[in-house]
Parts: sequence; C-alpha cells; structure tokens
Amino acid sequence: MRTLVAGGAGFIGSHLADRLLANGESVVCVDNLCLGSEDMIRHCYGNPNFEFVKLDICDNDGLNALFEKHQFERVYHLAANSDIQKGGNEPDIDYHNTFLTTVSILNAMRRHNVKELLFSSTSAVYGNKQGLLKEDTGDMRPISYYGASKLASEAFISAYSAMNGIKANIIRFPNVVGSRLTHGVIFDFIAKLRKNPKEIAILGNGKQEKPYIYVTDLIEAVTVMRYNEGVEIFNVGVETSTTVKRIADIICEEMYFQDVLYKYSGCIVGWLGDVPKFQYDLSKIHSIGWKAKYTSDEAVRMAVRNSLTKTNDVT
Amino acid sequence: MRTLVAGGAGFIGSHLADRLLANGESVVCVDNLCLGSEDMIRHCYGNPNFEFVKLDICDNDGLNALFEKHQFERVYHLAANSDIQKGGNEPDIDYHNTFLTTVSILNAMRRHNVKELLFSSTSAVYGNKQGLLKEDTGDMRPISYYGASKLASEAFISAYSAMNGIKANIIRFPNVVGSRLTHGVIFDFIAKLRKNPKEIAILGNGKQEKPYIYVTDLIEAVTVMRYNEGVEIFNVGVETSTTVKRIADIICEEMYFQDVLYKYSGCIVGWLGDVPKFQYDLSKIHSIGWKAKYTSDEAVRMAVRNSLTKTNDVT
Repeated sequence: MRTLVAGGAGFIGSHLADRLLANGESVVCVDNLCLGSEDMIRHCYGNPNFEFVKLDICDNDGLNALFEKHQFERVYHLAANSDIQKGGNEPDIDYHNTFLTTVSILNAMRRHNVKELLFSSTSAVYGNKQGLLKEDTGDMRPISYYGASKLASEAFISAYSAMNGIKANIIRFPNVVGSRLTHGVIFDFIAKLRKNPKEIAILGNGKQEKPYIYVTDLIEAVTVMRYNEGVEIFNVGVETSTTVKRIADIICEEMYFQDVLYKYSGCIVGWLGDVPKFQYDLSKIHSIGWKAKYTSDEAVRMAVRNSLTKTNDVT
Repeated sequence: MRTLVAGGAGFIGSHLADRLLANGESVVCVDNLCLGSEDMIRHCYGNPNFEFVKLDICDNDGLNALFEKHQFERVYHLAANSDIQKGGNEPDIDYHNTFLTTVSILNAMRRHNVKELLFSSTSAVYGNKQGLLKEDTGDMRPISYYGASKLASEAFISAYSAMNGIKANIIRFPNVVGSRLTHGVIFDFIAKLRKNPKEIAILGNGKQEKPYIYVTDLIEAVTVMRYNEGVEIFNVGVETSTTVKRIADIICEEMYFQDVLYKYSGCIVGWLGDVPKFQYDLSKIHSIGWKAKYTSDEAVRMAVRNSLTKTNDVT
C-alpha cells in the first residue's frame, strides 16, 4: 500500500514509518523539520520503499504535487506542534502546525481522491473534564490552542468524510513516551538533573497525573485500525497513570541520584492550558482486540532508560 | 456600550444592530458585503451611534485598526457564509467566511483585550443526530463544511476564552426567518412560484422538517444573554417545526395559488450536507427566562408575508 506519513520525521511519525516499512508498505515521509529531524529517519534511507520529502504541509502546491506523483492510498496525519506549552504563548503556532496542516491534507485528499485517513488527535480535545472520558463524552471545552486545533481538525475531518466518502480513524493519543523523545517532562527533567543533580525545579505541585503510553504500544494501536465508512474515534491509552513527582522519582532512580531537592512552582497546573489530570475509558479500543503491553510507570521508566542510553526501539 | 457587529449588513446582523441602537448602544457594523448589503442598514445612517465599515474580517490589519480606533467592549460575531448549500461545492467558502472570520476576531480581541463575545453557532454542529439535542450532547459529527467551520469556531473560542479570560456566549441558531431574508427555502420557493405559478421543484421528498425561528424572537434571545466567566452555550429555537412541504403550502396560500404541482427530487435530504430533521432541547435557554413568541409555522408565514410585501420589522 502506498502511504503518506505526515510529520514522518517526528518522534511518533518516525516510529510509525519503521513499522509500516517492516510490514512491507511503501512509505513517503513528509515533514517541515521544524520539530522533526532527519536523525529520526536516516536509518530508513536506502530502503527502496522509503522516501523523505522536506515540505511544509501547508504549502498546498507542494502537497498537491506530492499527491499527484505518488497516488497515495492512505494518509497518516501526525504533523502537529507537539509542544503544547510553547504554543500557549502564541496561538499562531498551533493554528498553523496543528490545524492548518489538517485542512491542507483534507483538501489534497479531496482533490486526489484518497479515501483513507488516520489522524492523531489528543486527550486535550476534552479540556479539563472530570471522570472517565469516553469517545462520545459531550461538552468538550479545550483550554489550550493545541486542544482547540485538534478538535477543530476532528470537525473538519467529519465534514470532509461525509462530503467526500473519506474513511477516517481518529485516535485520541494520551502522553506518548519512548525513544526519540524531543521534548516534554522526561526530556526536561533529565536535562535539568544533568545540569544540577542536587535539585530540580518542577512546574506545578507535582500531583498532575496522566497516563503515559509507550510508543511501540501506540504504534500497535495505529496499525490494527480497520477503515470503515465514515469516521471512527478511539481513545488510545493505558489504564494506569503517573504523577509528575513519580516521574522525577523514576528519573532519579535511573540516574542513581539520591536526596534530590524537588522545588515545586506550587500551582495546580504546570502552565496555562495544561490539563492536570485525566483518565480515559478504553473499552472501545479494547473491544477491537488491542491493549497496551506496558503500564504508565513502565512506559516512563523505559523512556527514561532510552533517553539516558540513547538506545532505540525496534518498532 | 461600544459594540462591534461582525456581519452587521446581513439578515440577522442588521436586525441586531437595530435592536442595539434602540437600546442606546454604540454600534459599529463591519461586513465585506459579499452576502450582506447596505440596503439592510441604510436606515441607520445618520444615527450618531452608528457606523458602517466595509471590511473583510479576515483582513487582520484592517480589523486591528478598527479595534484600535473604537476600543470595543463587546463583539457580536455573526459573520459567516450563510448559504450552506452553496458552500457544499467549495470547502474554501466556509473555511474563509465561517471559520477564519472567527479566528481573526479572536486574535483581535486577544490583542486589544476585549472580553465579551457573542458567537452565532448553528444546529449543524451536531451533524445528523437523532433525538433531542442538548448543549452537552456528545459525539458531534458535522456533515457539512458549514457545520464543521462553526464547530471548529466553538473549539477556538473555548481555548481563547480559557487562555485570555474572554467571556463568551455561543448561541446555536436553528433556521432563522423574517424580513430581509436573502436566500433559503422561503426565498427560493417564492422566486420559483413567481416564475411559474403552476408547478414548483422541491429538493428532497418534502419531509425534511426543521424548527424555524422568527428573527425578532432570536434577537430577543441574543440581547438577554449575561456575560459570565468562561463559555456558555445555548440552543435557541422553537419547540415546533415545519416540513418543507408545509412551507410550500403556506407560500401557495399566501400567494393565492391553488393546485400547484409539487415536483420532488425525491431523496431524503435536500442536498449533500443537509440535515433533514433535528430537534433541540431548549430547557437551558428557557431556564434563563427567554422563550420564543412565535411557533415555527407562524414564523414561516410571517416571513412569507414580509417577502411578498417587502415590509420590515421593528426589531
């Protein structure tokens, strides 16, 4: 199958490319290399089924030429601003990288009659909601530009699907960790502790608690999807979760640092737009036969080891 | 209060401007005159509290200059492509006129520290859902670019509210009718019957059934809103509804045409993206003391009479 991986030089996109190639698919990775890096995919160069194209997905002419050349059968759209905290100060970042990329891809799919789409959405679409979050939970109020851009993307996918017969799977990712991480709490904490092993500044009160999924588990979920008429939405995640303080503990253990002083900034949320706690109802994705292998704590610990040793995963 | 009415030379926007002026507010109407017309607001010229500015709201520089000059305290955002059927063939129409107008307004409000927003949303955000639609109904799947653009707008309003302290009321309008109608089923049927009083082509099977609200009822709902912290969403409508066939009957009665042949195109929906039937749960808006004066049939009949006699409403 001829596939396009948008955001293919990023953390998750590059793992997906690995898996698709391993499955014998033909893969074109497109990435503007703002957050992604060729280092993530250099190991694929030389594979006759692989091609990397540096392109901003919002460049409609470039994207149309790419669709024209390759006649894709399926698009995996993982291109986005993945640094939610950074996007909080400047709404244009998520507008362009998270939302507009989706509209560009939908327009190219419409024009070139491509009928299968996988879209990487997020728990942030739900906003700051209590209780078990189900795919059909209503009253969704995103509190970050990132969450809004993903929810707006979902809305456009729904209409383009209805109007053009596009079969779409929308996967609402939780926090994803693993080898090739480029930012986020694990990445930050390790950098801080390398600089000063005696103390670490922690945004919030340390009690923010989220489910972390290991990247190979996530990729497995992506690849078990079937493409039926219309739009299917899936929460994908793990049933356990990890507090920010626990992440710091795990990193200190793995770095063999003891008696590190945790200096909390003290607020309930890490930053404006942050959702301090959420939990998914995972019955829908479990019902189609997928379940994560690793708990949230295991995922965090494995990701910490990857970061410390620069080892890679075979996805 | 210094108010901006975006889309102020349109059908609903011009009625809102009338009411705000009657209430002693200062009103700047902005409109690109694509669908709106100066004919709608010419009667306000000369009122010292009124100003009309021809501007495309997506022109960020122009919009910022306007905000800079007028120091608005509240924005009523009614600018949109109001012709859903037309937007079905070209996604760019709703992307630009319905969605991008919202983003431009939110960015201007953010920059100029304007804290109150009323947004005209739509029943189309729910997609083709059965049962009584409540504001917190989940699994919303818009099937038109118009519905997607409005739902995406709601998502961005939610994030901009959380990030910038904007107090927003989102009103999900049903079909609105009354004097100054510029398109839609009543407008079309009258035009067709004037051309040929013997027969009329009707899209769909005539059983599409929607609640029609009279424009003065809608304006009343808009003006009773209070602006509290965060985002409030309200369905606004009437408890009754009117089929397309009934609309044709009412028009024939009002035009004194008898034995008109109805020629149905025959499908369940009028056009791709049309939602053939929906019904609101109105308990939330009723609980704050607003209720429509007119039934759906009454609203349709009054709008037909307005169209036939070119009379106006005092809103």
